[in-house]
Amino acid sequence: MSFTVLTSTLVKVPSDSHFSIYNLPFGIFSIEGEPDEKRRVGVAIGEYVLDLAYLANKGLFDKEFENSGSSPGYVFSQPTLNHFMSLGRPIWKGTRQKLQDFLSNPNRYIVDPTLPQSAGVEATSTLWEREKYLVEQSRAAMHIPANIGDYTDFYASKEHATNVGCMFRGKDNALMPNWVHLPVGYHGRSSSIVVSGTPLHRPSGQRLPNKDQPPVFGPSKRLDFELEMGFFVGPKTNLGEPLTMETVEDHIFGVVLLNDWSARDIQAWEYVPLGPFLGKNFGTTISPWVVTVDALEPFLVPQPKQVPEPLPYLRDTKDSGYDIVLDVELKPNGHDEFSRICRSNLKYMYWTIKQQLVHHTVNGCNIRPGDLCGTGTISGPIEDSYGSLLELSWSGQKDVLVGKDGSITRKFIEDGDEVKLIGYCSNPEGNYIVGFGECVGKILPPKPTPYD
Amino acid sequence: MSFTVLTSTLVKVPSDSHFSIYNLPFGIFSIEGEPDEKRRVGVAIGEYVLDLAYLANKGLFDKEFENSGSSPGYVFSQPTLNHFMSLGRPIWKGTRQKLQDFLSNPNRYIVDPTLPQSAGVEATSTLWEREKYLVEQSRAAMHIPANIGDYTDFYASKEHATNVGCMFRGKDNALMPNWVHLPVGYHGRSSSIVVSGTPLHRPSGQRLPNKDQPPVFGPSKRLDFELEMGFFVGPKTNLGEPLTMETVEDHIFGVVLLNDWSARDIQAWEYVPLGPFLGKNFGTTISPWVVTVDALEPFLVPQPKQVPEPLPYLRDTKDSGYDIVLDVELKPNGHDEFSRICRSNLKYMYWTIKQQLVHHTVNGCNIRPGDLCGTGTISGPIEDSYGSLLELSWSGQKDVLVGKDGSITRKFIEDGDEVKLIGYCSNPEGNYIVGFGECVGKILPPKPTPYD
Repeated sequence: MSFTVLTSTLVKVPSDSHFSIYNLPFGIFSIEGEPDEKRRVGVAIGEYVLDLAYLANKGLFDKEFENSGSSPGYVFSQPTLNHFMSLGRPIWKGTRQKLQDFLSNPNRYIVDPTLPQSAGVEATSTLWEREKYLVEQSRAAMHIPANIGDYTDFYASKEHATNVGCMFRGKDNALMPNWVHLPVGYHGRSSSIVVSGTPLHRPSGQRLPNKDQPPVFGPSKRLDFELEMGFFVGPKTNLGEPLTMETVEDHIFGVVLLNDWSARDIQAWEYVPLGPFLGKNFGTTISPWVVTVDALEPFLVPQPKQVPEPLPYLRDTKDSGYDIVLDVELKPNGHDEFSRICRSNLKYMYWTIKQQLVHHTVNGCNIRPGDLCGTGTISGPIEDSYGSLLELSWSGQKDVLVGKDGSITRKFIEDGDEVKLIGYCSNPEGNYIVGFGECVGKILPPKPTPYD
Repeated sequence: MSFTVLTSTLVKVPSDSHFSIYNLPFGIFSIEGEPDEKRRVGVAIGEYVLDLAYLANKGLFDKEFENSGSSPGYVFSQPTLNHFMSLGRPIWKGTRQKLQDFLSNPNRYIVDPTLPQSAGVEATSTLWEREKYLVEQSRAAMHIPANIGDYTDFYASKEHATNVGCMFRGKDNALMPNWVHLPVGYHGRSSSIVVSGTPLHRPSGQRLPNKDQPPVFGPSKRLDFELEMGFFVGPKTNLGEPLTMETVEDHIFGVVLLNDWSARDIQAWEYVPLGPFLGKNFGTTISPWVVTVDALEPFLVPQPKQVPEPLPYLRDTKDSGYDIVLDVELKPNGHDEFSRICRSNLKYMYWTIKQQLVHHTVNGCNIRPGDLCGTGTISGPIEDSYGSLLELSWSGQKDVLVGKDGSITRKFIEDGDEVKLIGYCSNPEGNYIVGFGECVGKILPPKPTPYD
């Protein structure tokens, strides 16, 4: 695939920025100090946020929204991306392309006394006031990007499922028989999904430290992260009308980093036979910037070979994997620096996100704009590519080194620890990055409960 | 417990009506032919719906909402009950009591040339136009009562869990070790929850008819209902702040009938290890009228004795069971009449709804107004009290008689069948009913898929 080389002449983008002109992820922001009702849609570029509500009200997206039935000024003034997500791929794509053009050819749009004049038909004399539509990211508060109706979590990494299966059921029964035939998934909790930076308290609950004794109540002792990605879905479907491997492409809006915090001891005791519940639903953290699948297209790679061949409804004949480097860093309580403890990649994932969403709807289950699907933990083939402490410490049997001097180790997360997920793609020439920024969360000590 | 005998003098309520003056359930209605944006809050009384938006705009609830920070006219003009559910028990209770007073002492509120005049301070001369605030239920379209953020389903009937466990794992391992220590639950799908009367197509999916062969794709052959109740929760809680057995009472708004349609063959193949997914999320049907816990209070009975005693956070020292008769009726395809195939009762349920919600939040999981929790299938101790065809036909091993002549039988649901859940309480004197109306759904043939 070849590219037209684009450069933002409006904003200088550092070469190591996750938010190059090839990215342009969407998010919900407000300027620090603004009231909640001022939340609106922004797009990240370099160290800035483009204020789409402002630009839309100046008419920048009038052409792209012409036949949408929605006003761009209204859509981009919403406190969530749900309305925009409902509009569909042509509008998403058109908006991104218009922004690329705006950033690389500002003279077409801007009559600016400080720039050479332009007679561009779309020029508007008020757009030269940069401070109106460009906000430094350091001044922007980022919010949860959508009102998430339903949150579904898959279990789509073969390495992860095999590792966990080995620990719980032994090597010979590691993968359940259904695993290679369908992307196993379950419903998660949407109320407790928080945006990067939101601290969470260590959860309390029932666990069974001794199999011959009754369960006990108290703070989790095996608190973990899970390195996942999440994808937001687009226009709604009707109940009873499945997506196909062809139509699904128009229903995936974009991708975020997702930390599926897990209390392994609570989960282990509760999950039979209906699946994880309180071991997961105390909190899930996502990154604020939603990277569109259009921005990720150059990084498509073949998914792992699927044997046995999936049933026809799940056959994905295109390259649908993504080459996205995924790192996990941990900052131990009382220390100042994050250290990498895992490097994985989305390309390892067995079931593609398209297969996940097609499977989700094959029984007629409907989706709504803003619904979020998690991929499940993304583990790679080698030890330091495992996407959870459960796997890295092999269920607490060995120490995971944090940092270089060997004095700090972890088996599970301790109070005060911070966990950061990072994800990015770069083109082979290495001259631009499409990144996800970061997804960070700190674990606070458990809150006292009336039962302590 | 003793009652002041109340009679609606404004509306004649048939003695067998589910919607006596002691009930007054809340729902969302519009008059047939009205556009979607006219959906508003109504309360059922006899064969009528009281239009709360109209009454609120006349000032009927001004006192009750005085310190709520919300305008009753606004709250009752909403297309869902979420805002009302957010306001809390004193407002819910006050609104119901005001309606009881309005219905039994209309002269206090109504200056009506056709009634003896009243000098009541709250009288308003415009309220005598009955047709403005009373709508025949036959003319009302009922809608989903809330925008359901999260839907959780429990598994709280010991008889049901034991029956299912016997079939799948044998009598000796029927109940999992965790079952008697906590109300097992999992997250379900909120997008596919529909209101009574909405038909659903038979879902297709993967199943494993032969253990030595690969799975096949096609319409479910073991489609089932599940007799459940659901409860809507009230004011939001914050992430990290559990409810206790005391505070939980102020966070349960009311109760509905719930049919958790289940495709047993899809579920059996997919559910290990993360729980039910496509076997359930193609559709869940609820009744439109939400019966408040205040209306149900006279029907509180002791819950089943819990052995072993639950951990302190789950100890429910009050009578928290409800004596609610629950019937399931089936109308076979091509026939005109419903026949009862099951009679159960909510009082059989082992874990109370308060215990369910307390457990749900004990790890800090937050709730939002409009979240819905299902109880799980409510089976009783004897065979015809089993709340699913899976149990009634003992996994398809025997025929379930539908109707009296013995010529119609079912093992699972056939295309064109309709299933109706009915629920009601009546006081010992039998002079009034607090009922849930009905929760009905028809199964349509599977839609053709691109994979047939």
